[in-house]
Amino acid sequence: MTDIPISNDKPAPTVVVIFGAGGDLTWRKLVPALYNLWRDEWLNPQFSIIGVDRRSLSDGEFRQRLREGVDQFSRQPVRSQAKWQRFADAVNFITADFADAALYTGLAEAIARCSEQWGEPANTVFYLAIPPALIQIVSEGLGTAGLAADRARNRLIVEKPFGHDLISAQALNHLLTAVFHETQIYRIDHYLGKETVQNILAFRFANALFEPIWNRAYIERVQIIVAETVGVEHRGGYYDHAGALRDMIQNHLLQILCLVAMEPPVAFHANEIRDKKLDLLRSIRPIAPGTARQFAVRGQYEGYHNEPDVAPDSQTETFAELKVMIDNWRWQGVPFYLSTGKKLANKVSTVKVSFRPVPHLAFPETATTTWEPNELTLHIQPNEGIDICMQAKEPGVAWQLKPVTMRFRYSENFDKRPIPEAYETLLLDVMQGDATLFMSADQVEQAWQLVMPVLTQWAKSDAGLLTYAPDSWGPHAPDFPLLAPALSEI
Amino acid sequence: MTDIPISNDKPAPTVVVIFGAGGDLTWRKLVPALYNLWRDEWLNPQFSIIGVDRRSLSDGEFRQRLREGVDQFSRQPVRSQAKWQRFADAVNFITADFADAALYTGLAEAIARCSEQWGEPANTVFYLAIPPALIQIVSEGLGTAGLAADRARNRLIVEKPFGHDLISAQALNHLLTAVFHETQIYRIDHYLGKETVQNILAFRFANALFEPIWNRAYIERVQIIVAETVGVEHRGGYYDHAGALRDMIQNHLLQILCLVAMEPPVAFHANEIRDKKLDLLRSIRPIAPGTARQFAVRGQYEGYHNEPDVAPDSQTETFAELKVMIDNWRWQGVPFYLSTGKKLANKVSTVKVSFRPVPHLAFPETATTTWEPNELTLHIQPNEGIDICMQAKEPGVAWQLKPVTMRFRYSENFDKRPIPEAYETLLLDVMQGDATLFMSADQVEQAWQLVMPVLTQWAKSDAGLLTYAPDSWGPHAPDFPLLAPALSEI
Repeated sequence: MTDIPISNDKPAPTVVVIFGAGGDLTWRKLVPALYNLWRDEWLNPQFSIIGVDRRSLSDGEFRQRLREGVDQFSRQPVRSQAKWQRFADAVNFITADFADAALYTGLAEAIARCSEQWGEPANTVFYLAIPPALIQIVSEGLGTAGLAADRARNRLIVEKPFGHDLISAQALNHLLTAVFHETQIYRIDHYLGKETVQNILAFRFANALFEPIWNRAYIERVQIIVAETVGVEHRGGYYDHAGALRDMIQNHLLQILCLVAMEPPVAFHANEIRDKKLDLLRSIRPIAPGTARQFAVRGQYEGYHNEPDVAPDSQTETFAELKVMIDNWRWQGVPFYLSTGKKLANKVSTVKVSFRPVPHLAFPETATTTWEPNELTLHIQPNEGIDICMQAKEPGVAWQLKPVTMRFRYSENFDKRPIPEAYETLLLDVMQGDATLFMSADQVEQAWQLVMPVLTQWAKSDAGLLTYAPDSWGPHAPDFPLLAPALSEI
Repeated sequence: MTDIPISNDKPAPTVVVIFGAGGDLTWRKLVPALYNLWRDEWLNPQFSIIGVDRRSLSDGEFRQRLREGVDQFSRQPVRSQAKWQRFADAVNFITADFADAALYTGLAEAIARCSEQWGEPANTVFYLAIPPALIQIVSEGLGTAGLAADRARNRLIVEKPFGHDLISAQALNHLLTAVFHETQIYRIDHYLGKETVQNILAFRFANALFEPIWNRAYIERVQIIVAETVGVEHRGGYYDHAGALRDMIQNHLLQILCLVAMEPPVAFHANEIRDKKLDLLRSIRPIAPGTARQFAVRGQYEGYHNEPDVAPDSQTETFAELKVMIDNWRWQGVPFYLSTGKKLANKVSTVKVSFRPVPHLAFPETATTTWEPNELTLHIQPNEGIDICMQAKEPGVAWQLKPVTMRFRYSENFDKRPIPEAYETLLLDVMQGDATLFMSADQVEQAWQLVMPVLTQWAKSDAGLLTYAPDSWGPHAPDFPLLAPALSEI
């Protein structure tokens, strides 16, 4: 695997091919992201987008639809029709059946034409915005047409879910690596493209202040919380076969855990950071079969059975919490609680680091009635920033310690310009060949391995499936003292 | 020495006797402070103030003058004339020569009458708001009249200067302790009564987060800065014989240094904290005779010679900076810079703690062009609070680290009510018998011992006396690289 450092350079001339270009992701996220990158001059002027879908659309219709998406979802408006037209001129659409070999030879020809026109070989990014069932046929089609052969120039982006369990994840990795080399595969987790998630690395490794206390000697517990207010919405069909553990914890929350808990990287190279994250995943204590109730809580919001495409007797969890213990020198004995759920009282993503009490509280008893241990909160969203809850002397002639907040907010420290969307960061990274923020096959499989004992036990019986009221803070789990009360304190 | 913990209780019935009651301090500070304590019901209802001065004033005239002082300087206004009258009824004035023995027997009788009327023995606080030359006669007068005999109930407050050098400080302590026991003597440094100065203790010892990094492994240097914009004003006569090192560094700045650098106290008892501060002063590396230029800088603002009561050829420093090295395990090798001056560009009191760089900066070079080590600033005044200057990822698709500020402000975390004045805190402490925030004889003498080599060398010659422009950041001292440039960054 080549080890390319994080690059701030413009990418090489690139053709981006989006499979499933007629879908929501392309319209809402991918093309607005590409448009913003282009507008901010991050893209090479030698640049082309080819949309592929079974839907029948002309180039014009496709461009029109993309324009509507940009108008609706882009963080920056289109400056002028002329400017948009220059972008749109680089966009084409192909109506095709993904099983048709002619599609891939056609693509190869189109890419070759670009290379010829640009006077240098085009890089290619193949974005699979398609259901998992179609991945194999597209991947093999690309391989057969010779579009996976150039390890340096042909890149593949895969969207989650990366499998449904360990076996299917291994199968997926196997079929992808039968065609592409692992270094060509970018498994995208848009959570890792969020500014505040990336900033966990800056916070930990660009500041001398925090790393010395970032260990079991000073930290009592860590909570990683991703709470949603929405229900399953139109995704009931998918979600009812996944559930919160698969949909959120196996990927997003475990990835955030890696950034919070991993050892310092030697360098900001993709391999190095991916290895450090893998080290962390490997040091998580395996959950012994049959012990899920000691390490996991699941809940389902009331009314979930009435959602469209949800089985009337579904046992799928819409809330999950996992207690993770890390068996290494840094974290031995410090529980990490990973919590997520739908239809909760607030939409919030946050990492709460609770410090141990001071070793000796020397103050008079009357001064410490409202004393609390320190807490550091990384606000991923909303209110992007960092808070330290600390103790100060309340002004007054009497000695009274009171909790106060030391705050850092992105919005107060940086320009008010809208922050780039995660997809902008990630698409540019792929074009630059930087895999730092993407999950390796090892990571994905290791993460599945961690959650499998819980999934297996949950699949056997619905014992322990709690219900919770919509707009609450999730189920009340008396066996699991940190759950609901801790969440409600966010 | 009795070891009384910090108390939040009301003090016992007390008679406060102010010697020099006709002076500015009484009018501007002491009585407004006592009035606020009374108004906020911190005082025992059994309470009396006796002003003593050579000036001839009736009780009525004295009360009228105090009322004007309260109207002008109190942080809280007088609510109603009736309420003021209740306070004023407890105030009396005695015109007397401090050398007159009848004054002290008269005071003893007045105090005895209070005790009788209150049905319990009155505590007494004797406040010496008088020039140093008069201290002996008053102290002895009180002793002869039996007003120093009760170690638990008779207390003496002494204002700075506590001597002019080590010898005179020892003499002053000697004459005070010839009459009062050391536990009865409260040497007041109003700086220690400031909320933000007291909060240094809360910050360090009520939070588990900072103490682990509060040492030579993580801290590169500390600057304690008290900058004034005013010149000597009407105090030229006193100041020209003192100078910045005596007037500010020997007391205020060294006391702040103690709070910043001392070891954790076992308990918040006066003895314990005073001992820990003394330990710190004793661990400061002595400045060898003749080496002042390696450890101290002095400056004089242009035009100082034209100030009233200043000698036309005065060599007195109006700016001083002292580099302090602490020979203990925690601080070995970490320089502490104590800087103060008059006629500087800004009025600011602050402690800047500069951390070492991260041990390994793993980020790509292009990301770290504006990287800076962490800095923690304790703002004593203005903008009372704490800042951490740290590094964050600048939002954007490129990796760029930028300094940002994490802030805590008293004004944003607590009621907007005016914070109690330092004199309120300190007067109440004396009435409660809590000497934590007062300087012991040991501390005062140790502090003098530290600065004597510099004072001695400076007295011999004016070599190294730099001039600086008013409203600047002090002299430019090329031999002392941290001086002027560092100050200007506040």
